[in-house]
Amino acid sequence: IRRLLRGTALFVATAWGMGVAEPKKLIHGLKVGMALSLVSLFYYMRPLYEGVGGNAMWSIMTVVVVFEYTVGATLSKSVNRTTGTFLAGSLGVGVHWVASQSGDHLEPIVIGISVFLLASATTFSRFIPTVKTRFDYGALIFILTFSLVSVSGYRVDKLIDMARQRVSTILIGTSLCFITSMLICPIWAGDELHNLTHRNIDKLASSLEGCIADYFKGDSCDDNSKRDSSKEIQAYKCVLNSKPTEESMANFARWEPAHGHFSFRHPWKGYLKIGSLIRNCAYCIHTMTNCTNSEMQAPEFLKRQLQKPCMELCSRTSRLLKELAIMMKTMTRSSKLDFCLQEMNFAAQELQDALRSLPIKPEPMLRPAEDINHEKPETMAASHGPPLLEVLPLVTLVSLLIETAARIEDLIGG
Amino acid sequence: IRRLLRGTALFVATAWGMGVAEPKKLIHGLKVGMALSLVSLFYYMRPLYEGVGGNAMWSIMTVVVVFEYTVGATLSKSVNRTTGTFLAGSLGVGVHWVASQSGDHLEPIVIGISVFLLASATTFSRFIPTVKTRFDYGALIFILTFSLVSVSGYRVDKLIDMARQRVSTILIGTSLCFITSMLICPIWAGDELHNLTHRNIDKLASSLEGCIADYFKGDSCDDNSKRDSSKEIQAYKCVLNSKPTEESMANFARWEPAHGHFSFRHPWKGYLKIGSLIRNCAYCIHTMTNCTNSEMQAPEFLKRQLQKPCMELCSRTSRLLKELAIMMKTMTRSSKLDFCLQEMNFAAQELQDALRSLPIKPEPMLRPAEDINHEKPETMAASHGPPLLEVLPLVTLVSLLIETAARIEDLIGG
Repeated sequence: IRRLLRGTALFVATAWGMGVAEPKKLIHGLKVGMALSLVSLFYYMRPLYEGVGGNAMWSIMTVVVVFEYTVGATLSKSVNRTTGTFLAGSLGVGVHWVASQSGDHLEPIVIGISVFLLASATTFSRFIPTVKTRFDYGALIFILTFSLVSVSGYRVDKLIDMARQRVSTILIGTSLCFITSMLICPIWAGDELHNLTHRNIDKLASSLEGCIADYFKGDSCDDNSKRDSSKEIQAYKCVLNSKPTEESMANFARWEPAHGHFSFRHPWKGYLKIGSLIRNCAYCIHTMTNCTNSEMQAPEFLKRQLQKPCMELCSRTSRLLKELAIMMKTMTRSSKLDFCLQEMNFAAQELQDALRSLPIKPEPMLRPAEDINHEKPETMAASHGPPLLEVLPLVTLVSLLIETAARIEDLIGG
Repeated sequence: IRRLLRGTALFVATAWGMGVAEPKKLIHGLKVGMALSLVSLFYYMRPLYEGVGGNAMWSIMTVVVVFEYTVGATLSKSVNRTTGTFLAGSLGVGVHWVASQSGDHLEPIVIGISVFLLASATTFSRFIPTVKTRFDYGALIFILTFSLVSVSGYRVDKLIDMARQRVSTILIGTSLCFITSMLICPIWAGDELHNLTHRNIDKLASSLEGCIADYFKGDSCDDNSKRDSSKEIQAYKCVLNSKPTEESMANFARWEPAHGHFSFRHPWKGYLKIGSLIRNCAYCIHTMTNCTNSEMQAPEFLKRQLQKPCMELCSRTSRLLKELAIMMKTMTRSSKLDFCLQEMNFAAQELQDALRSLPIKPEPMLRPAEDINHEKPETMAASHGPPLLEVLPLVTLVSLLIETAARIEDLIGG
C-alpha cells in the first residue's frame, strides 16, 4: 500500500509540475471539458434533442475523438471524419440498395462480401505513406461507417433518414470543436513548429558551448557546476529525435488559416529542411561529446595550446547560432548575421592555422635535447597522435557548422 | 484529368509494389476484413441479435478501432478499451445516481460539472509521459464512455441494462480480435522488433563498407556502380530515426504471450538499449559520410598510403557487425565473435600505427631535396594537415565501434 501511495504522490507531483511548466496543456484540458459540456446541452434542451433524434450521442463521440491539442490537428481530423463518414455513408446506402434488389437469400452474402472487400482494401491502403500521413483517420472512419451503415441497414429500415441525422450530428460536433479550439486560447501547430525550431537552434548553441567548456576546463571545477553543465550538454539530445514531431506539426500546420505572422500558405516545408540541417549539427555534436569522453586524453600542454582558438571558435559559433535563433524567432533578417558569420569563419581559419603549426612546434623544443636522433620516430609520433585524434572532430564539426549556417542562410527569407 | 489519372496509376503502382514487398501488410488487411465479416454475423443471426440488443453496433466499432497491425498492439488496445469502458461505465452510473438524488433542477448541473471536471482532468493526464505511452487510448475511451453514460442516463432509464450490454458487446468484439490476430498468420510486435534490430545492424555494416570503399575508390568506377553504392551508403539513414518505432514495438511486445523463441517476460528493454547503441554508430557513420563528401580532399599519395589499413579495418568491422547481426538473429552465442573482435582490434591498432608513421614518413623523402631547411614549416604542415583532417574521423568512428561492439557483447545473453 505504501508503494501505491508513493506512486500516486509521484504521479500527482509530475502532473502538477507539468501543469505549471506548460499551462497550455492545462488550458487544453479545460477546453475539452468545456466543449463536452456544451455538447451535452443537446441532450438537456428538449427541442434540439428531438431535432437530431437519439443520434445526439454521435456529437459527443465526435467531440471526444476529434478535439486535438493543436488547431491544425483538430481541423485535419474533423475534415477526415466528415469526408470519411459522408463517402462511406453514401457508398453504404448504395450497397444496401444493390443488396436489397438481389433477393432475401443473397442479401447478407452481398453485404458480407462488400464489407470484406472494402475493409481489406482500405486497411491495406492505410499502410501507403501518403494515406498514412494525411488520411489515416479518415480511412478508419470510412471502414467504420461503411460497415455500420451497410450492416445495420439490414435491420434499420429508415436508413437514409439515419444517415442524414448521423451526418448532421457530426457536423454539429465538428463545428463546436472548430469554435472552441480556434476562439479560446488557440494553440496553433504552426506556432509550435516555429517555437520548436528556434528553441532547437538555441539548444544546439548551449550544448556546443557547454561541451567545449567542459572539455577544456577538465577537473578544475566542482561537482555542482559540472552537473549543471552536463545538463546543458544533454540539451541537444532532444534535437536528435525531433523528426517525427516536426513532420506531424508541419502536416497539421498546412490546415491552419492565417494567424499571427503566418499567412495561409506559409512555406512549412522549409521548417522540415531547417530541421534536418539542425539535426545534422546535433549528430556532429553527439559524435564530438563521444570523443571528449573517450579514455584517450591529450597531454595537458597540447590541450592548453589549442584551448584559446577552440574556445574562440566555439563562442563565435554559438553566437552565430543564437543570432540565427533570434532571427528565426522574430522572422527578420538581422544585419548582425553576416558579421557573425565572418567572425566565425575567421576563427575557424585561426584554429586551422593553430592545428597546422602544432605538429611542427614541439620539434624545435625536442631537437636540442635529442640531437636530431632519427631512430625514435615512434615516440614523437605518439606525442603528436593523441591530441589530433581528439581535437580534429571539433574542426570537422566546425566546418560542418559553417556549411549548415550558410545553407540556413539560403533557406530563410522571412 | 490526365494528372488525376496519372496520380491514380502511381498510387496503384505504389500499393502493388508494397503488397509484393511486404505480404504481411496485405494479410493484415484481409484479416481485418475477415474479422469484420464475422462480427456482422451477430446482425444476421437473429437469436444473437436479440441477445445483445441494438448494441451489436458496438462490436463492429470495437473491431474496427482495436484491430492493429501487431498482436501486442491489438492486445494493448483491447485491454485499454475494456478497462476504460468498465471504469467509466461504473463511475458514470454512480454519478447518475448522485445526480438523480439531488432533485430535478440540480440534476443537469451536477452532471454537467462532473463531465467538465473529469474530461478536463483526464485530457490533461494524457500528456503525462507514463499515461501517454501506455494508457493513452484507455483515457480517451474513459472520457467517451463516461460522458455518454452520464449524459444519456438523463434520458435512457434502463441505464444499468445498457451498460451491461455495452460491456458484453465490447468483450465479444475484443475476443474476436484476439482470436483473429493470434491464430491467423500472427504478426508479433516482438518478432518485428527483433527483425528490425538485426536488420539495422546489417544495414550499418553495409553502409560502413560502402562509404569507405566509395571514398577510396574515388572517381575510378563508372556511374552505375556509384549509384548502387550510394544507395547502400544511405541504408544507415533509416537507423537514425528508428527510435519511436522501437519504443512502441517494445511497449507492445510486453503484452504478448510466449511465442517462437520468446518467453512471456522476454527482456524487451534490452532491445531499446541495443537500439540506442546502434543509433550511436549510425550518427558516427553520418558524420563520416559528411567528412568524405567535403570539398577538402587529401592528396592522392597519402590516400593510397592509408587505403590498405583503412580498408582492412573497415572489412573487419563490418564482418564483426554482420556476425553480431547473425548472432542476434539466431539468438545464439557464436564463438566466431571473439575472434572477429580480436581481428578488428588488431586492425585498429595497425591503422593507428600507420597514422602515426604518416607525418614522419614524408620527411626523409623530402629532406635530401630540401637539405633540412627549417624555414618552411607551413608547407610541410599543409601537406600533413588535410589528410588527417579527413582520415581521423574514421579512426574515432572505429574506436567508437569497438566500444559499441564491446557493450553489445555485454548486453546479449540470448
